[in-house]
Amino acid sequence: MIVVLKPTISDDEILRIEQSIKEFGYKAEIVKGEARTIIGAVGNQKEKQQHMNLLGQLPGVEAVVPIMQPNKLGSREFKNEDTSFKVGDSTIGGKNLTLIAGPCSVENENQINEIAKAVKSGGATILRGGAFKPRTSPYTFQGLGEEGLKLLKNAGDEVGLPIVTEVLDVKDLNLICKYADMLQIGARNCQNYALLKEAGKSKKPVLLKRGMSTSLNEFLLCAEYLLAEGNMAVALCERGIRTFETATRNTFDINAIPVLKEKTHLPIIADPAHGTGYWQYVSPIAYAAIAAGADGLAVEVHDKPEIALSDGGQSLKPKKFNIMVEKSRIIANSIGRDI
Amino acid sequence: MIVVLKPTISDDEILRIEQSIKEFGYKAEIVKGEARTIIGAVGNQKEKQQHMNLLGQLPGVEAVVPIMQPNKLGSREFKNEDTSFKVGDSTIGGKNLTLIAGPCSVENENQINEIAKAVKSGGATILRGGAFKPRTSPYTFQGLGEEGLKLLKNAGDEVGLPIVTEVLDVKDLNLICKYADMLQIGARNCQNYALLKEAGKSKKPVLLKRGMSTSLNEFLLCAEYLLAEGNMAVALCERGIRTFETATRNTFDINAIPVLKEKTHLPIIADPAHGTGYWQYVSPIAYAAIAAGADGLAVEVHDKPEIALSDGGQSLKPKKFNIMVEKSRIIANSIGRDI
Amino acid sequence: MIVVLKPTISDDEILRIEQSIKEFGYKAEIVKGEARTIIGAVGNQKEKQQHMNLLGQLPGVEAVVPIMQPNKLGSREFKNEDTSFKVGDSTIGGKNLTLIAGPCSVENENQINEIAKAVKSGGATILRGGAFKPRTSPYTFQGLGEEGLKLLKNAGDEVGLPIVTEVLDVKDLNLICKYADMLQIGARNCQNYALLKEAGKSKKPVLLKRGMSTSLNEFLLCAEYLLAEGNMAVALCERGIRTFETATRNTFDINAIPVLKEKTHLPIIADPAHGTGYWQYVSPIAYAAIAAGADGLAVEVHDKPEIALSDGGQSLKPKKFNIMVEKSRIIANSIGRDI
Amino acid sequence: MIVVLKPTISDDEILRIEQSIKEFGYKAEIVKGEARTIIGAVGNQKEKQQHMNLLGQLPGVEAVVPIMQPNKLGSREFKNEDTSFKVGDSTIGGKNLTLIAGPCSVENENQINEIAKAVKSGGATILRGGAFKPRTSPYTFQGLGEEGLKLLKNAGDEVGLPIVTEVLDVKDLNLICKYADMLQIGARNCQNYALLKEAGKSKKPVLLKRGMSTSLNEFLLCAEYLLAEGNMAVALCERGIRTFETATRNTFDINAIPVLKEKTHLPIIADPAHGTGYWQYVSPIAYAAIAAGADGLAVEVHDKPEIALSDGGQSLKPKKFNIMVEKSRIIANSIGRDI
Repeated sequence: MIVVLKPTISDDEILRIEQSIKEFGYKAEIVKGEARTIIGAVGNQKEKQQHMNLLGQLPGVEAVVPIMQPNKLGSREFKNEDTSFKVGDSTIGGKNLTLIAGPCSVENENQINEIAKAVKSGGATILRGGAFKPRTSPYTFQGLGEEGLKLLKNAGDEVGLPIVTEVLDVKDLNLICKYADMLQIGARNCQNYALLKEAGKSKKPVLLKRGMSTSLNEFLLCAEYLLAEGNMAVALCERGIRTFETATRNTFDINAIPVLKEKTHLPIIADPAHGTGYWQYVSPIAYAAIAAGADGLAVEVHDKPEIALSDGGQSLKPKKFNIMVEKSRIIANSIGRDI
Repeated sequence: MIVVLKPTISDDEILRIEQSIKEFGYKAEIVKGEARTIIGAVGNQKEKQQHMNLLGQLPGVEAVVPIMQPNKLGSREFKNEDTSFKVGDSTIGGKNLTLIAGPCSVENENQINEIAKAVKSGGATILRGGAFKPRTSPYTFQGLGEEGLKLLKNAGDEVGLPIVTEVLDVKDLNLICKYADMLQIGARNCQNYALLKEAGKSKKPVLLKRGMSTSLNEFLLCAEYLLAEGNMAVALCERGIRTFETATRNTFDINAIPVLKEKTHLPIIADPAHGTGYWQYVSPIAYAAIAAGADGLAVEVHDKPEIALSDGGQSLKPKKFNIMVEKSRIIANSIGRDI
Repeated sequence: MIVVLKPTISDDEILRIEQSIKEFGYKAEIVKGEARTIIGAVGNQKEKQQHMNLLGQLPGVEAVVPIMQPNKLGSREFKNEDTSFKVGDSTIGGKNLTLIAGPCSVENENQINEIAKAVKSGGATILRGGAFKPRTSPYTFQGLGEEGLKLLKNAGDEVGLPIVTEVLDVKDLNLICKYADMLQIGARNCQNYALLKEAGKSKKPVLLKRGMSTSLNEFLLCAEYLLAEGNMAVALCERGIRTFETATRNTFDINAIPVLKEKTHLPIIADPAHGTGYWQYVSPIAYAAIAAGADGLAVEVHDKPEIALSDGGQSLKPKKFNIMVEKSRIIANSIGRDI
Repeated sequence: MIVVLKPTISDDEILRIEQSIKEFGYKAEIVKGEARTIIGAVGNQKEKQQHMNLLGQLPGVEAVVPIMQPNKLGSREFKNEDTSFKVGDSTIGGKNLTLIAGPCSVENENQINEIAKAVKSGGATILRGGAFKPRTSPYTFQGLGEEGLKLLKNAGDEVGLPIVTEVLDVKDLNLICKYADMLQIGARNCQNYALLKEAGKSKKPVLLKRGMSTSLNEFLLCAEYLLAEGNMAVALCERGIRTFETATRNTFDINAIPVLKEKTHLPIIADPAHGTGYWQYVSPIAYAAIAAGADGLAVEVHDKPEIALSDGGQSLKPKKFNIMVEKSRIIANSIGRDI
């Protein structure tokens, strides 16, 4: 880290700061300029964040600036080659794009079976569907619970697709692990560290969705909670951030794709449904994400979106899904990838 | 709700929409203008959000606009007079301002006892301190757990203050309820609905912190999760939102205070420490919050912030806390309140 | 517009509101529900915004909700087919993508001539370069002024490309119109209405960049200032918005492309250089923009970005520009377009 | 500035970077750590921003971090004591708070005269009113122009108040300077550098409003454009920033007050009308701003806000204005200031 000193600092204060830096186990190098002095503190102490806080409080210090990426196991410095892993028989990461599709919520047996068949025939590689739903209002549909898990698993087995479903709470984790091939941690729980730790311990593959105001550096640290438990089967999902713009429900952060690709070896999945909030924008944003380098898509498909119990407005009908996949394949092929 | 129709809609489509509205149990009133037709759908169906989604999907519909506040039990329409409730012997809400103070984390017996004495003598009415900490990085201090709860409870008992501490996870709830007089639900868990429901069932008073990208309408709905379980002892805490500005850690949303006061009967607490991120801005923002109508403050106090294990940079020393309380009292008195 | 009334409103107040609506020239239709009454006010009065303000102030009114898009000449309702227009011999809009390229600033004759040759051979259709620069600090390079315009025009003529350059101020408009084939109005001036009006009157084609916190609805209204002067040769440029994310300089709003395509017939240009702020992210975002449906790109190219007098960090070297164009062409071809 | 090098950098690359730093006229100090090397570049070169760009491009450089505040004349380092200056007979800055009040737009002689009398008797120290209006839509009222200036000046003379009015365009500057005692530069023109320079040259006192997505550092640099022309009579106006929150029109950034007070000697005025957008929130935010340390308020007052031609929804009636001033005085007195 770099400790920037105030122009008015005294020599005694500089000495005190230098001592503190050394006591914490860093090497201190003082750079005296005409207007201002800075101290470089170099070293890899575990409690660096705390040390930065501490040094920032000392008299004469103007700012403390970090110089190292705080994530470790997920960084390209730790592992340069792209990560890929299996979810059931499907692989996430690599030349072939992942295609996660299904309804927002599992509603009943017929619904999930019909949609599973449709998305399988359209080209999906993983079936999604919610059994436990986070809802903004306590007065709306909250999901079918274990019954939903069974229906989802069964539908996946019927068509030969592994399944991913959201875990909202540590207490449901064991139950969900009995059915799911992959756990989804939703945007609202992206920084629910208790849940991240337990999901990491489960060793199930995890689809970690970015929180709607989580910065990319923080997102990488959220993933680190999973990785630090020895679970390296983690895919990061960009699903839109909250900005001032209200023409769409969220602002899909397309920049996140090349930025994350540069910083981490983990695969990146794009969710254009939540990233826009309107079905008519889902396909163009899906094409954009693939062109920008995403490793896959997660989309919502519903055979009757107009009566869906949640998020109908951003779901594609199976026919539109098929068209989207075909065009996505053409774009993927044009950049040397496939679906 | 209002259903706005496209200018190009056919009479058949209008008929179909009208039928759907009636099937859902609303009264439908059609307003034909020169350029465009609208339909008012009036009624109080439970699944209104879902109905809005559905209607928005129908051919010929341009937009569906809600006209009712979605929160119920927390609204001024449900209960007009301000809510106040007891936490231990302290009252939140009413003429006297609440003063929640203490360290970010409980670190050891001596630390918490010293700070408890200091804040009590400075005028605090509730002692705060974290035993389970949400941390952005998995590699930093995570709190003392139950040992921290015991130390905090003991320190509160010694000086005669009730205690508030954060609950991160449903599995810790019973344990924390054994010690705490009030539960804090932190910003990262503001939309952790599983946790909200269980905290509501516990019937303990709750300090609910606004998420850093939670809109005020959403915030009121988060509170509704607690209220819907029959727990009316809820205080809302504004603690800054995430914006483009980087000169401060968050942007304290001072507007939230009069907006929430207008919309809800629940008491509002201001947290100027997280709302700014720097100790030197804590006091001016505390004064501002009181002047704007807040019912209390939550601040971080540490006797040695330069070696605090978390959030030292936004903690006040006891002496600065005393000065802040004195000036806060003068401002409170000037607007007919007291501390 | 819809006037939503408070549940507590009296019949007299309703009568007064109804009268006001009629006095303003709207048709008023009252919809009485069990809990609440609403009034639809239908009509196309010019001062609708003011009428909405007025009605919102009346006793008993809870909210006034607009139901019509406020933009007119730029809307799909006014003109459904896509607009295209000529800039010199180049066409913006249509099957072939526009490729605007050149340095951020014109620095000297040799620099602009070299870059003009490079971008022309790489496939550019319009040459860009700044002569008057908006700079955050008054202490940095501010552009060459008229000398820069001459050099840019000359360089364009040499290689056979029309030129676009930024106009910062009404007083420079006539001067710039003597040289430029297209005017650029920059993000900081997106809502500088005095400049928009004069640029509209000039009848020169305009590249209008979105302000960094301009919503899409506001952006369309900014364009309306140009269109209302009879200037229909307007291209809209998405160049990133300001959000909480700091890993990139701005957040490129990829959603803006399909949203604008739906709402307006004007062509949409993507600026991935300002949209990201880092040269290494320019190409992936360019590909994404094309895949999402953009009608062209505006990028910064510099032969020596490491000594550029402005924005060097987001400029591509000619070789990287060539690679970007080739891959862009492949993606464009895959969706039925060309460069 | 600090140049942070990549872990993989070669000695040759380090040498090349060091040479570049020295060629630009900085002193270079190399700090070698175990994991990473950094170079401190110390000096006060004029083109520092450009040098930072340049160095950031060199192979082996990970980041370039500035260590000096970029503003000069406005900084506390340049001038530590608070600035105050005269506008007519009124003083901005100092113990007494400034109270700028008047309608959003001058509409007619009777309206401005009535309001001028009302705000004078209520305690205003400067009369405000717009003659040239920036409007989001080209189809709404745009102001009375010179006629409005005359009416405003006359109304101010009648009651003995200096006047402030907005300048939108360089071409109107001379005209406005003939009438106005103080120029207002609005939020949309906060980064209109051409206008800032000319306003600086005019030597008239300036009320500079923060742009709705202007960071505080950028805001200080906008002021620097005025100061660099030798005009030190500049007041900074916080008027709300654009965030995701939609319950209010803008988010009043209360943090800006102590932050700006720390960084600059210029006086700070708060505009709670634009900062909230609703008249019922104006007074509480005014009180908050005073408590946080603002040097004055700018509010909109209209005798008939329900028929105001602009911004009626955020205007106070004279009676409410009087109450606001009285309570503001009580709060100001409680912190040792006066109105």
